[in-house]
Amino acid sequence: MSTWLNNAWYVAGWDSEVDSAPLARTICGVPMVFYRKLDRSVVAMRDACPHRLLPLSMGLREGDSIRCKYHGLKLGPDGVAEEMPLRTDTVNRKVCAETYAVAERHRFVWVWIGEQDKADPALIPDLWPCSTPGWTFDGGYYPIACDYRLMIDNLMDLTHETYVHSGSIGQPELMEAPINTRVEGDQVFVTRWMPGVDAPPFWAGALKQAGPVDRWQICQFLLPSAVLIDVGVAPVGAGASLESHDQGVRGMVVDFMTPESEGTMHYFWGMARNFEIGDAGFTARFKAQQGGVFAEDREILEAQQRAIAANPDLRLAAYQIDEGGVRARQIIARAIKAQQQEAQA
Amino acid sequence: MSTWLNNAWYVAGWDSEVDSAPLARTICGVPMVFYRKLDRSVVAMRDACPHRLLPLSMGLREGDSIRCKYHGLKLGPDGVAEEMPLRTDTVNRKVCAETYAVAERHRFVWVWIGEQDKADPALIPDLWPCSTPGWTFDGGYYPIACDYRLMIDNLMDLTHETYVHSGSIGQPELMEAPINTRVEGDQVFVTRWMPGVDAPPFWAGALKQAGPVDRWQICQFLLPSAVLIDVGVAPVGAGASLESHDQGVRGMVVDFMTPESEGTMHYFWGMARNFEIGDAGFTARFKAQQGGVFAEDREILEAQQRAIAANPDLRLAAYQIDEGGVRARQIIARAIKAQQQEAQA
Amino acid sequence: MSTWLNNAWYVAGWDSEVDSAPLARTICGVPMVFYRKLDRSVVAMRDACPHRLLPLSMGLREGDSIRCKYHGLKLGPDGVAEEMPLRTDTVNRKVCAETYAVAERHRFVWVWIGEQDKADPALIPDLWPCSTPGWTFDGGYYPIACDYRLMIDNLMDLTHETYVHSGSIGQPELMEAPINTRVEGDQVFVTRWMPGVDAPPFWAGALKQAGPVDRWQICQFLLPSAVLIDVGVAPVGAGASLESHDQGVRGMVVDFMTPESEGTMHYFWGMARNFEIGDAGFTARFKAQQGGVFAEDREILEAQQRAIAANPDLRLAAYQIDEGGVRARQIIARAIKAQQQEAQA
Repeated sequence: MSTWLNNAWYVAGWDSEVDSAPLARTICGVPMVFYRKLDRSVVAMRDACPHRLLPLSMGLREGDSIRCKYHGLKLGPDGVAEEMPLRTDTVNRKVCAETYAVAERHRFVWVWIGEQDKADPALIPDLWPCSTPGWTFDGGYYPIACDYRLMIDNLMDLTHETYVHSGSIGQPELMEAPINTRVEGDQVFVTRWMPGVDAPPFWAGALKQAGPVDRWQICQFLLPSAVLIDVGVAPVGAGASLESHDQGVRGMVVDFMTPESEGTMHYFWGMARNFEIGDAGFTARFKAQQGGVFAEDREILEAQQRAIAANPDLRLAAYQIDEGGVRARQIIARAIKAQQQEAQA
Repeated sequence: MSTWLNNAWYVAGWDSEVDSAPLARTICGVPMVFYRKLDRSVVAMRDACPHRLLPLSMGLREGDSIRCKYHGLKLGPDGVAEEMPLRTDTVNRKVCAETYAVAERHRFVWVWIGEQDKADPALIPDLWPCSTPGWTFDGGYYPIACDYRLMIDNLMDLTHETYVHSGSIGQPELMEAPINTRVEGDQVFVTRWMPGVDAPPFWAGALKQAGPVDRWQICQFLLPSAVLIDVGVAPVGAGASLESHDQGVRGMVVDFMTPESEGTMHYFWGMARNFEIGDAGFTARFKAQQGGVFAEDREILEAQQRAIAANPDLRLAAYQIDEGGVRARQIIARAIKAQQQEAQA
Repeated sequence: MSTWLNNAWYVAGWDSEVDSAPLARTICGVPMVFYRKLDRSVVAMRDACPHRLLPLSMGLREGDSIRCKYHGLKLGPDGVAEEMPLRTDTVNRKVCAETYAVAERHRFVWVWIGEQDKADPALIPDLWPCSTPGWTFDGGYYPIACDYRLMIDNLMDLTHETYVHSGSIGQPELMEAPINTRVEGDQVFVTRWMPGVDAPPFWAGALKQAGPVDRWQICQFLLPSAVLIDVGVAPVGAGASLESHDQGVRGMVVDFMTPESEGTMHYFWGMARNFEIGDAGFTARFKAQQGGVFAEDREILEAQQRAIAANPDLRLAAYQIDEGGVRARQIIARAIKAQQQEAQA
């Protein structure tokens, strides 16, 4: 049984990663090649020539097509043969590479890996802070050698910041704030509301105003493997609440964990914010800082992945702080089972 | 079921690679050690001491014998014990390492890996251009991490030159010349006859004569895994034909693909020629150029090997240009099956 | 069936390797973390946090406890939880990591990997030369990528010194001295008595006296995987014998082969001596020399391990010189079988 959901949109890359030159990336165990056509739309195709399986990503781009580097079989953006290796041969249009539905939204390239007739772009989550005037958005890409669900566990419980990120963003106060976990359909919310606290340096600098603040962290899990984290502070008395909080400064951290194989994943991280939006230096510094935070997480997650293999008699335990991750895993498992039952029906 | 033929001669090395010092090389999955006796004849022995299995190739040569580096067991060139670890012990002549029939022909060392009583040197192919006055012969050795049959496919269809070797020996004209594939017993021939064409730079320089030429390429597959390619040009009107073509300049490219393991091989490449035979500089330049061509092939073949593993749901397809390789694979499979039936009978 | 004995004391490290900072080391397939408490006694614990399995060796030491680097679960030296990740959570004392019996003797840290109620420190061998006034003791640690039994074979037959250590301690005379092998209960003794020989340079320098000597080598195998080697020389006529030999200079080489996994081991080597005991320079030079000897053994043992895998159709043979190793392996196999029968009863 697969550990990931097949009928789903996964982030395959940042929009800026895909261009006319082919990009090879394995998504959910399937080697894929991505490239842009002349009209800038993105093609996703099995990264194997239907002739002798050489990766098409080694090939040559011609117009909207791609030509294999081995014997020159030329395939159109629909994956169908346009020219055989021997140019005098009749083109056999049954010769083709699998293609995959692609959509471009909120600065990401999304790919649908399962049944292609079910690929509805309306199912892509609405990441409005990543595409709305008054907000700015940027982020990075990091490959990690761990099961993608370990990263979901990590993000659905921010208490790990105290120990893993003790040198950067961790704060003991986080351990003391009560958390609330709730499930709404296929979504999980883990929320922390910290009223009347001192703003930590990062948020104090963003708010540019002295005095106590109300602070929030709202982690939201979405199928198949995303975690969005709504964070920010507002001056006490400005009326901010868990439900509505645009009174101060606000950020939306987006995390997409795309499985590469059973034990490796692609991590796409970004942050949208509604403050200092014209300050490119702020963005650059913040991305650099996040690179350091990420390195701390990667060390932990890859060690955890190795430890799971080295201790086959032990199982992951779950305490109260893990409830968010546990609920997210239950929703993933339930969705996989439902798709399998549907496929067998 | 093995993917290679056992009762067969395989090239184990260039004659110059084997000397009195032991050479370790795994042939068809069997670790072997090769060395020359005082009379310069070659010994091939299992590369494992019958005592504690240490590779004999780590050992010391003494006369025609080899002594294990671990406890000093000394074996004669027939693999039989000549001295026990404790010198006072009686020599037990049942203690022995497997040896393999070896022959030296046409500048190669050949080894027979299957039933030793069937090792008839008369079965070694007659590579006369490699050992005939009026011709000169040289080449190289390259390990490649791919199934040996992928290299046979590669060589039995030279249309790949256009794309793989676009920076070196590829020429679009090759794509347009008609090819003919025929099977004769256990051999496959893929021929191209290009009458009245301009000689490409390499051949024009060899021929030292202006004007149009007749050009040929004759690829010949031989069991267990060799491809010979007869190439050259002759002035139009000199009477050259596919069957007889010594009127101009001629080369014989020899390619031996010796399996090392299921996914790796030893590639022995050489070229005999009947022109500029005294020009050592020509040979050196040509070998250097071939090293570059080889690097292009290796990149393709190793990527193809990885792609086959990464796309287990896909199969190699075969078009018209692949007929030579397809026929060669059929002959290999038939020969393996015949040997297995014979072994069971 | 395991290739090692479970109910046994294994050397886990030199006393100087373990300190208050955590040390990660896998013993008999079990990842363990070792550290010293404030009273300097040693703790051995499964190197996996009972919460999310992160290696505890990545954690922080606090007093006698250790705190996981991921979410801060704090465990006492008995492995039992002392603080949950969320400090406001009630401590659940059922949350715990496995701990292992540890003893410190003769400068080594010993760990008992099997049934903990059977861990009796009286079962640790009495290495009196390593802890007796009038003797000095030192040594080193070397990881080796081989089955631990290959190293036992190696040590129970010192004839390999002639070939493996031809550049250092090997001597042809060793090949000619008669050896005697005998089994006493679970112990194997391989002895060599060389009366009236010239002292080799090492021993001549130690004895500081000219003239012929009586020389001895007594290899002793002990369960689960130790080899002690009593070596030395005494002047002819001083009355030394195989049974009693404190008349000259004497050393006790100790070798502990602790399995790490099926194909890798930890090698702890040391030498106690009753001469030049105040000469730290002698010790340093001797350890440096032994490092070179060890490198020769490691090259052989790792090549042997690879050769066993590469020649699956071949088996290790045993001649007269191997009797010590053969007997030791029989005792190991018998003890493993007995423990398994006891466990099933």
